This record gives sequence, C-alpha cells and structure tokens, in this order.
Amino acid sequence: MASQAIARTGRPLSPLPLAAVVIDDHFWSPKRDVVRSRTLPQQEEQMRKGGQFEALKLAWKAGEPEPHIFWESDVAKWIEAASHCLATSPDPELEAAVDEAIELLDGAQQEDGYLNVYFTVVRPGDRFTDLRDGHELYCAGHLIEAGVAHYQATGKTSLLGIVRRYADLIATTFSPGGPCEGGYDGHPEIELALVKLYRATGERRYLELSHQLITNRGRQPFYFDIELERRGNEGYFAGFFPQRPEQVQRFREYNQSHKPVAIQDKAVGHSVRAVYMYSALTDLAAEYGDTELAKACDVLWENLTNKKLYITGGIGSNHSIEGFGPDYDLPNEDAYAETCAAIGLVQWAQRMANTRHDGRYIDVLERALYNGVLSGASADGTRYFYGNPLASSGNVHRQEWFGVACCPPNLARLLSELGRYAYSLGSNEALINLFIAGTARFTLDVGDITLRQITDYPRHGKTEIIVSTPQAAEFTLSVRIPSWSKPTVTLNGLPLDITGVRNGYLSLTRTWDDGDTVSLDLNLAPRRTWANPNIASTTGKVALAWGPLVYCLEGVDHNVPVRSITLPRSSELRAVADDRTGAVTLHAAATALSPSHDGELYPTSPPDAKPVALTAVPYFSWANRGQADMTVWIHETGLHT
Amino acid sequence: MASQAIARTGRPLSPLPLAAVVIDDHFWSPKRDVVRSRTLPQQEEQMRKGGQFEALKLAWKAGEPEPHIFWESDVAKWIEAASHCLATSPDPELEAAVDEAIELLDGAQQEDGYLNVYFTVVRPGDRFTDLRDGHELYCAGHLIEAGVAHYQATGKTSLLGIVRRYADLIATTFSPGGPCEGGYDGHPEIELALVKLYRATGERRYLELSHQLITNRGRQPFYFDIELERRGNEGYFAGFFPQRPEQVQRFREYNQSHKPVAIQDKAVGHSVRAVYMYSALTDLAAEYGDTELAKACDVLWENLTNKKLYITGGIGSNHSIEGFGPDYDLPNEDAYAETCAAIGLVQWAQRMANTRHDGRYIDVLERALYNGVLSGASADGTRYFYGNPLASSGNVHRQEWFGVACCPPNLARLLSELGRYAYSLGSNEALINLFIAGTARFTLDVGDITLRQITDYPRHGKTEIIVSTPQAAEFTLSVRIPSWSKPTVTLNGLPLDITGVRNGYLSLTRTWDDGDTVSLDLNLAPRRTWANPNIASTTGKVALAWGPLVYCLEGVDHNVPVRSITLPRSSELRAVADDRTGAVTLHAAATALSPSHDGELYPTSPPDAKPVALTAVPYFSWANRGQADMTVWIHETGLHT
Repeated sequence: MASQAIARTGRPLSPLPLAAVVIDDHFWSPKRDVVRSRTLPQQEEQMRKGGQFEALKLAWKAGEPEPHIFWESDVAKWIEAASHCLATSPDPELEAAVDEAIELLDGAQQEDGYLNVYFTVVRPGDRFTDLRDGHELYCAGHLIEAGVAHYQATGKTSLLGIVRRYADLIATTFSPGGPCEGGYDGHPEIELALVKLYRATGERRYLELSHQLITNRGRQPFYFDIELERRGNEGYFAGFFPQRPEQVQRFREYNQSHKPVAIQDKAVGHSVRAVYMYSALTDLAAEYGDTELAKACDVLWENLTNKKLYITGGIGSNHSIEGFGPDYDLPNEDAYAETCAAIGLVQWAQRMANTRHDGRYIDVLERALYNGVLSGASADGTRYFYGNPLASSGNVHRQEWFGVACCPPNLARLLSELGRYAYSLGSNEALINLFIAGTARFTLDVGDITLRQITDYPRHGKTEIIVSTPQAAEFTLSVRIPSWSKPTVTLNGLPLDITGVRNGYLSLTRTWDDGDTVSLDLNLAPRRTWANPNIASTTGKVALAWGPLVYCLEGVDHNVPVRSITLPRSSELRAVADDRTGAVTLHAAATALSPSHDGELYPTSPPDAKPVALTAVPYFSWANRGQADMTVWIHETGLHT
Repeated sequence: MASQAIARTGRPLSPLPLAAVVIDDHFWSPKRDVVRSRTLPQQEEQMRKGGQFEALKLAWKAGEPEPHIFWESDVAKWIEAASHCLATSPDPELEAAVDEAIELLDGAQQEDGYLNVYFTVVRPGDRFTDLRDGHELYCAGHLIEAGVAHYQATGKTSLLGIVRRYADLIATTFSPGGPCEGGYDGHPEIELALVKLYRATGERRYLELSHQLITNRGRQPFYFDIELERRGNEGYFAGFFPQRPEQVQRFREYNQSHKPVAIQDKAVGHSVRAVYMYSALTDLAAEYGDTELAKACDVLWENLTNKKLYITGGIGSNHSIEGFGPDYDLPNEDAYAETCAAIGLVQWAQRMANTRHDGRYIDVLERALYNGVLSGASADGTRYFYGNPLASSGNVHRQEWFGVACCPPNLARLLSELGRYAYSLGSNEALINLFIAGTARFTLDVGDITLRQITDYPRHGKTEIIVSTPQAAEFTLSVRIPSWSKPTVTLNGLPLDITGVRNGYLSLTRTWDDGDTVSLDLNLAPRRTWANPNIASTTGKVALAWGPLVYCLEGVDHNVPVRSITLPRSSELRAVADDRTGAVTLHAAATALSPSHDGELYPTSPPDAKPVALTAVPYFSWANRGQADMTVWIHETGLHT
C-alpha cells in the first residue's frame, strides 16, 4: 500500500473539530468521564503537590530541589486535555483552573517570549545550549499544542498569544545567523505542534520553522556535536550512553538524528520521540507536497508495522532505551511498549490515513487504541501502566502515578479528543473511521450533514449510520471496513454489494435523503491470529481476537498458570457477552501442562496434559481483578498432523 | 534424598590423588592435551602481555595503569592448572615457568606475609579495609589452592610456604582483637582453599579459620556495614548497587552475606560466589560433623538443582548480577550461565557426593561437566564462552580471551584435575563416578588395587572395568549408575542383578581376583527430556539427550531458523555416529513453520508447516562451525490428542 500512496496527490483529509462530534457510547463514554472526573483532578493535584505550578512563579532559590526540565510539558498536557473536555462540555470550574495555570505561564514568560522555568531560574545562561537533552523544544511543543487546543475550545487567545510569542522567539533563535542556526531538538514534538499552530493561525512561518527543524535533523556535521563542543561540557543526560563509538551511534539513533530524516528507513531509538517525529514528517510531506519526505514516511511505516509492532499496537520493545529493538525483536514478558508510544502511533496513523486517504492505516490506529493504549489505565481510571507487557508471571500492576508522569495525561489528551479520530472530512466526503455511538456534524459543499452512529461496538459488530440532511444532498459517505472483518451492508434495508471496498473504505457516492440509513454488520466472530515465525517469542503460539480487541488469558480465570495452557487448533472458540459488564469473553476447551514428577526440574516423562476451560478476556482489561499471571500468546497444538 | 543425607555420619569419601589416575580416553584426552598445549601457554602469554607477572615486581608508579585487584587469582589459577598437569605428566619446561612465577610471588610477599599487589603498591594503607569488594581474600584463596596443588604435584614447598605465611597473617588479622575480627570476604573462595590447606598440612588452624569465616558470614551487625563506616568511603564497586534499601538487600544477597550461612535456604546472588561458598560449607559441615551446616547444604542444593539449574548444568540466569534469578527463572537466549559457575557446581557436587556417599550428586556433576562446562571452550580449545546461552539467534560466538579472564584458566584447572572427579575412595571401597578410559590405583586396607576402564563413553554406553590385584582381595567396588540409564551388568560374563542399586551406585562387595571384569552397559538410546512447566521459557518444548549429553539444534544443519522447528512427540529419534568425528548426532522427522503471508506480521491464517529433517548435535559442541542460530529446547507438538 505504500508505493501507491506516494502517487496520490489529493488534498489530505481533515479531522472534524471536536465540537462537531458528540460521543454517547457505552464503551467510550465511561472512559471519557473518568478523564474529566478523575484523571484531570488527579493530575492537577499532582502538579500542585509536585511543584509544577509553584515553579512557574520563578521563585526557585539555589539549594532548593530543582524544577524538572520537563515540568512545562506536564502543565501543557493537562491544559490541552482540559481544553479538549471544554470543547464539548462547558465547565466553568475547569475553565477557571485552566485560566489560572495560563496566568502562571504568562507570569513565567520572559520579556523576549522565552518560557522555560529550568533554564530561567536554575541555569539562566544556558538557554538553547543543550538541545539534545534539555527538552526545551519538547516543552515548547506541548505548550503550543495546549495553546492551540485552548483557543479552539474556548476562543480565547490568552495561551495562544503566549505560545506564539515563544514560537516567534524560537524562529528567530533558529534562523540563519541566530544562535541555533542548523539546530533541532533532542525530543521531537514541537514539529507537529508548529504544524497545528500554522493551521490554527494561518501563519506560514510556523510551518516553515517546523520544516526547517525536520530537515536540519541528522545532517552532517551533527548539530549535537557542534553544540557539545560549543558548550564545552556534557549534556544533561551525559553518561546515559557511554562515549564508545557504537554508543555514540546508538545515542544518535535514540533521538533519530543519526541521518537526514528523508533517508531514514528503520524505526529506531526512543519510540515516543520516533512516532512524534514521524507524525510531523507526515504532516510536512503533505503540506509541502514533498514526495521524498512522503516516501520516508511510507518506508518507516512499513518497517514499524511489519517488523516492530506488537499485536496490541504497542511499540518499543526495549526497556533500556524505551525504544525499538531490532526487526522482529518483540519479547512478551519483557515488552516495554510504553503507553505514550502507542498513543503516538495513533497520532501518526491518523496522519497517514488522512494523507493517504486509506482506512487500512486506521486498522493500525484501532489496534493500538483498543489494546495497547487502553491497557494503560485501570478500569476505574485511577491507576496506570507505563509499560504494557504482553505476558506477566504476576508481578506487574498499575500504579497511581509516576515520577515522570507522561503517560496518564497523554491518555487523557487522547480520550478527550477521541472525536478527532473517529471521523475525517474530505472533498465533499464524510468518512467514518471508528464505530462509536453518537453524532458528527459535517459541513460539506452541499451543506451541513449530520451522521448518527447507533452501535454497541466492540461488543457487537452492528452499526447503523443515519444521515440527517435538511435537503437531499449528493456527497460521498465512506465507511471504514476493517481488514479483519467479513462485513455485510444494507442501505435502507436493501443489501449492498461491497466488492467495491477500496483503501479500507466502503465509499457510497449518491444523493442522500434525510433518514437514509446504512446498516453495517462486521459479523464479529472469535478469531485466531498467528505471528510471523520470525518473531522468536511467539513461535508455536496463537492469539485470540474479537473485533478490534486482542485477548489474553489471566490467572484469575484459571486454576493453572496461564503459560501452561495449550489450545488445540481444532478447539472451537465461543464468545459470551457478560450480562453484568457487557464485556465479551472467549471460551474454548484447552489443556494445561502440569509437572508429572513432583518438583523434578527435567523429568524424562512428559508433563501431564489435563483438560482446562480456557477463558480469554480483552487485553486492555487485564490486571483489574487482582494481581495474576497473564499471557496474550497461547501455546498451540495440532499445528499439523 | 536430602533428608536422609543428614542422618548419614560415615567418613566422607575422598578423591584419588591425581597421580593415581591415568586418563587415556578418546573423549577427554584431546581436551586435556589442549589445556597443556594451548590454554596454559595462551594464559601465560596473556599474563606476560597483560602485566600480571610484571606487577608482582611491585614497580608500579602513580599515574601508570593500575594493576587489577584480582590479578593474583589469574597467576594462581595458571599455577594450579599447570601443577595438575605436572602431577601426571612431568614437563621440566612448564615446571621452570611455574617456578619463575613462584619466585615473583615470593618477591612480592611482604615481610609479614601479606601478598597482594594492588593493596601493596596502589593503596598501601588500605589492606583488608574493603573486604566486600577488594577481592584480597579471593586472591589469597586461589594462591592457597595453587600452593597446595603445586606441593601435591611436585613435592616442593616453595609456594606452599608462601601461602602458609599469608594464611597465618590472615588468621591473625581475623582473630579476636585483630583488625578484622568478625570479618569475612566479599567473594568466597578462601574458605574452600583453607580446607585444602588443612588437609595438605594437617594444621587444624587453617580449618578453623575457614570455619570462622563461614560462620561470621551474614551475622548482624553486618561486617560490611561496619567496615564501610570505619573506612568512611564507598567500596571499590560502589554504585554497582544503588543505595536504595531493596538494593542494599540485593547487594547482601549478591555476596551471600544477607543472613547467617546456616539458615540460608535459597541459592541467591552471584553464582560463582555462591557455589564456592557452598563447596566450603559442605567440607566444613563434614569436618565439624555439624548437622545444621549440613542441613543448609541440603536445602541449598535442593533449591539450586530443583529450581535454578539449566538442563545444561549451567547456573545463574541473570546477567546484571552474574547470578541467580528467582525460582524457575531460566530464560534460554538470555541465559548467563557463566562457565565458571558450572565449574563451581562441579566442585560442589563432588563434595556433596563424597559427604553423602551418593552418586546421584554425580548425575548433576556429569550434567554440568559434559554440557555447560565443556561448552565454555571451542573444539580446538582456543576460544571461550563466558556466558553459555541455551538459544541464540546467531549473534553469539566464543572469544579468544576476556578482560576478566576467569573462565579459561578455570576450565584448564578442572580438566587438568579431571582424575579427582572420576573416582572416589571410601572405607575399603573404590568408587567409579565417571566413565573415562584409563586406570586408577587405589590403596585399600587389603592392598593396592588397580581398576582399568575400557570405554568409548559417551559415544557408547559400554564400559568394561577390569580389576587388577596382586592377590584375592575383599573390598567393595561401587559403580555409578546414572539415573537416566537402563543398565545391564555382567560380572565375568554372568548377568548381575542390579535391583540393589542404592544411592546411585551399584556396590559389589566380594572377594576380587585379578582380572575380574565388570561389564556395564548403560544401553544408550536417544531420549526426550521435558522441563517442569513452572519454567516459562520451556513450556511446550522438549530437549534431546544421549547419555550425559544434552543436544541442541544448530542453524548450520538446517535451512530454516531452528526456533521454527517443531518435533512431533511421535517422531522417532535415530542416533548416528559420525565416522569422521565420532560424535553421535540425533535425527528425526520434524516440521518447520514458515510465514504464510509474505511479510505480514500478524496473519489470520496459520503459518505453513513443512517437513524438515531435524539434526541435533551435542550442546557443548555448538558454535564450532561458523555463526548460526541454536536452540536446546525444541517446540513439541502432539502433546495430547
């Protein structure tokens, strides 16, 4: 699908504005309510206790604990998530708290627009001298995203003005002849934020700054070497990678500055850095019509999704760098698969889908969203995973918060802007990406159209899409057809031929009347998925799925260790919807191995295999019923006769 | 077997003196020749180049590279291995080189007996102030072992005198009122060495010093805390374990000082430290008739062999501490399984066998010796593994030498004293532990007896044992019967009833005539071994074995990745002896999984299974035919119907 994508030159699809989407969904609404009622207050409390707000008063004195170099990003992500909530649900109390935080940011901003506590009070002379490790541009990026979200949600320009002044200072700093000419950040983020700022303000210089930062990246001589020499001392994270040549190269890959972005061809390094950078790259390739950059996106996407992606949509298997391992290096129990990285993949996948006009990218988005992202939070929304392993011997559990608390607010940001992922808007075309009950209002050439989704997805595979239009209107309604589904579709009750599904969407171009109804049935059934045998950790194993959900076995449902369970290939899978929770569980007759000789480590007779009733639950829901062992991948037998 | 062992109070069995054993064996003799012709010269060269010899001249000046804190152990292990060689094969040139090294040690020894270069020239004031990390007693232990071996091989007391003077200084230093009262070492080794010194000299004070070091260990207040406070600065390895409480505990476990030795019940920490300590503990429990210490040995043995032992006899799965993980934590590709640790296990198993009079400990000794120890060296004896993984994707290979070169000389020590492991001597009882062609001379109450083994083990399972005695003599001949074997035995051609095998030995008490012949056939056949399902990494897998040898699949014998191979349980195993090398390879019809959808990471149809001819080779011999992937554990299908 990559090679075709480059050729396509149509205008990219856009997300809908948040206010245009109403979500009223049995699956998502409770999770979004938790963001508003729990995560945002919890994060605010953490920041009041932790010093993030206090630090903005710039009252730090030598000898006191230092403000953390990325505290502004915590504040910014909280403002952004809160703004997303305000976009759809007015809330004067929340808005006042946001305004208070913005006032603090306003007070912390310097005359010239600079806004970073650490480099204002702790190391005031060292602004923009440690781009590799200092996180200034990363924080700036999150502030910019917050400024845009706040403006779009409230119409207020209080924060937008602050971040524009800061962005203008950065543009000057990085301009030809400026102190950081040729420079770029050690943690990509500002690039995608500047594209948003450009789109919100129409000011092309922000887009150009983003383009400049991306295209400077990885050029030789390496800017991080230049700044190191200029600075005369090691960076903030000195020693994280020893000075041996292979580690120098590894450090460059860690922050994706090892070669020019246009010729990067492998997903390497810190995975959050990577997918944030790839997101910006995708935006910029489209904005500039740059086929070389677009090609890089395709090549990186192929590498990531065909060689480095967990079945849960998690990415970044390697703990030590919080990042990518070699191709097919996807251990299960040792998986890192940071929640933030899966969120970043969702962001990138959306950009790929919208620029390639291809719903198959949404398959990856949905895989990450319903599995490796959602697993990041507990069912009650009060506890979080940083890493999301695919197997556990029972020693893994979610925590209330983290010292570096990037994941919980990132999850809050994503869930509170879910509407932007559910739909896309094209040229006289309304696209449904995700099956979420509620409504979406599109303004097309033909006028305002409202689509209503009635669905119980992912519990059931049926979705009714009802068109509301003041008058008959010709436009294209495109409904995503997941690659794993076996759909049947009716239009106003009459069966539709869906052999014409292309690029992952069923596109219906016709004159729509008010009340026209498309009924999609994905005909969900439990399914088995296997892994490419190049992945060592999954050889001889099978995973179970239902709709977009990847399943796992949890110890709490079995009286044997789940890793000892073997599922015959011939064993029939049954789906049961839990009356109480609504969750679909999968069931099958399986066997479990048990020690045949009590205690013997290496017996010469095989382990006994005894029948066991296998129960699989959605992966995202695991570790909510006490600590227990878990596995996504299940031993399989009967592979051949 | 543990609970019975404590009750047994007979005098421990002894190894035979090296000079009493002649090894002339198709399997072992070439490996031992390599020790003499390659390993010893290579190590000598490394020490001449590396500075170990030069440093003994005490000419180090500030600013020069520092001598390493355990260089004496390198010199000592080389002298010990060389002495073992000299014990059976006079070699004036080698003896002269050893004498030269001993002269250097003599010159380095201080007036008061102290002998350690680092703490003489680099930090002269810091003798015995950093027992936890300083390795002084560890080096002293290896020097003592060398001194004893040199004396026993040559009758010379040159080195024995040196180490006795040093041991006497240590005894004074650690005596009541001495500067190190209550202290003990951070790396056990001297304890077992002092037992040897006691046995060689008859001086009980060396035994008592060993007992004192062992029983001080782990008492509260912790000596390493006391010395830390007294010293006022961090130890040599400060920072290896951060100062957090759980890491402080982990550091104590690392060097087995977390609690008194008598109540230690889990094999924890650095695995070489552990098995060296357990070896001394076993000696001391027997020497003192201390049932509490003996019980600790039994409990530790049970834990190690039933929960922490690789099928190869390797121990210590955890890279970061070069040591033990939790129970059943035995990953294959990530196995550390240091060669030295397997060697230490051989040493400990011998002591357990000889104090418990139980050949089943030799089963573990043999498992380690023929697999996880032997894998440590290449077929030509010139390259070495430090860690011995049980699976590899092809990126593992032996190296010529190491910065910390403990393993190669340790392997040289073991192979050159193999005779001490092959036989044991009891009260009017001669015991055969290992099947190795050659002769052994026992002096029993009834006179001198010579046993000759004619065998082609492990290629074949037949061993003829021929008794030579000047006159008819009543004594017990005990022949070890491996637990995995299905033996048949004849005496002078007449079948023997072997239902009376107890404690792993077939014991024949009778009046033996010259030429009496016991013919043992272990009836070798390829066998499958399974792992306790509590081990996560081996669930659903099987390993193959032939006699004492564990087998593996190597990429070089297959045109598919070995991890993709699945062996049906019903598939017959065939053994083929290679005409050229004499090695037995195992063969079976198997299948290999291959990607069904080119490149797809998670296909919804299963991988294709195609027939493949499986070839398994002895684990110890892997990585001798170029770099390739390897696995000991093979996916199994047909586990149940």
